Amino acid sequence: MPMDSIKPIENVSLVDRVEQRIMEYIKENNLKPGDSLPKEIQFSEWLGVSRTAIREAMSRLRTLGLVESKKHRGMILKEPDLVENFEKMLNPQILDEATLQDLFEFRLMFEIGMADFVFARKTHEQIRELEQLVSESENVQCNDKHFSLETEVKFHKALYKMANNNMLFKFQRILLPVFQYVHELQKTELNYHSWGGGFTDAPQKVVTHKDLVRELKEGTPQSFREAMRMHLDPHFKRNLKNRGELL
Amino acid sequence: MPMDSIKPIENVSLVDRVEQRIMEYIKENNLKPGDSLPKEIQFSEWLGVSRTAIREAMSRLRTLGLVESKKHRGMILKEPDLVENFEKMLNPQILDEATLQDLFEFRLMFEIGMADFVFARKTHEQIRELEQLVSESENVQCNDKHFSLETEVKFHKALYKMANNNMLFKFQRILLPVFQYVHELQKTELNYHSWGGGFTDAPQKVVTHKDLVRELKEGTPQSFREAMRMHLDPHFKRNLKNRGELL
Repeated sequence: MPMDSIKPIENVSLVDRVEQRIMEYIKENNLKPGDSLPKEIQFSEWLGVSRTAIREAMSRLRTLGLVESKKHRGMILKEPDLVENFEKMLNPQILDEATLQDLFEFRLMFEIGMADFVFARKTHEQIRELEQLVSESENVQCNDKHFSLETEVKFHKALYKMANNNMLFKFQRILLPVFQYVHELQKTELNYHSWGGGFTDAPQKVVTHKDLVRELKEGTPQSFREAMRMHLDPHFKRNLKNRGELL
Repeated sequence: MPMDSIKPIENVSLVDRVEQRIMEYIKENNLKPGDSLPKEIQFSEWLGVSRTAIREAMSRLRTLGLVESKKHRGMILKEPDLVENFEKMLNPQILDEATLQDLFEFRLMFEIGMADFVFARKTHEQIRELEQLVSESENVQCNDKHFSLETEVKFHKALYKMANNNMLFKFQRILLPVFQYVHELQKTELNYHSWGGGFTDAPQKVVTHKDLVRELKEGTPQSFREAMRMHLDPHFKRNLKNRGELL
């Protein structure tokens, strides 16, 4: 028998399988957050495994935020916080560069893709805050790099807030260190001023925060989306060039 | 002292704090995947807590995929699989409706926002596959709902593949049950055919998969993006109407 037809032994431990069976039990019985799970000893009998294995699997589910233990009620199903665990893993130094680049592209996709939600949900108050931010930054000299990064972050954060998608807002907050890391990484690898404008060599318009606010007030989701695309153009170019996909 | 000025007691357990300190140790010492962590007893001495607390915190980090134990080497730092844990939590029945709606909007944002990446990375082979899919679906009667959902999923999956962002591809795969769940949920709540076209009452063009393929071949990222926006228009309308933000 040739080597490549030998199937690998499945790398699944007993506790992995117990964890999976408990999750299946939850689905099949249509349990909802707040419902109690059967007792350890009950699962142990059903699955024919030790109580230690059940306990370990339950402990994992607790780590993931899927169950919690309550006095006199045992294990209770819980609605997990999707972002919390993700946050623990988002340490740029332990993620490889390809993953960090992928996550950076999420930012570009979100900011282009959220135009319709920003338009449907923006308030006058929020627009006024953006205008305030823009006019503050106009009073500061352009060379203050620290200030300009801070304004940049504040401005885009305010747009995420306007989109009024709670998951997205939490996501962009925890992705911020990744964005900054990739930004720094790419800046050192490329000469910031050496690229032409746009994807062709034709010079393209620079879209500022002020222009974006004008689009929010007078434009449409489509015109705002395309203005945002141009505003993010240096990021797109840096990203695609970094991956060898641009010239 | 009025009640609202009493700060809540922080709901952080000893093991929570140990976990946090170990993560800080990893960051401060700039440890990389593959590096060994200090021994249990070492952490226990440094932090002045029991070895049981250290063991429990380590077990959590193992559950999250941040460390693994290796023979003769103890605990090793590992690059976590960002999607794996997320997947365990993505059971529509235990997430509340607001979270599911938020995640559904992620799909809309990604598909609009990924146009530039699709364009930069698409291959002729992939375009041919899309054309094949489109012509197959033309040979089937429109009323076969099951087939048309299957084609819909296949077509959009192929576009995600073209965008060639590995994280995004994994994400859309695990989000698929959420998309289908929300889709079903919204269909039952609304009369599918009762809305006018577009956000105003002006009738708008229906953009088919065939139109999208034509844009991929002959258009630009911008024209493809706007065609995709129109293709997804029923989803945008359903979503915004469902949230009381349309009409």
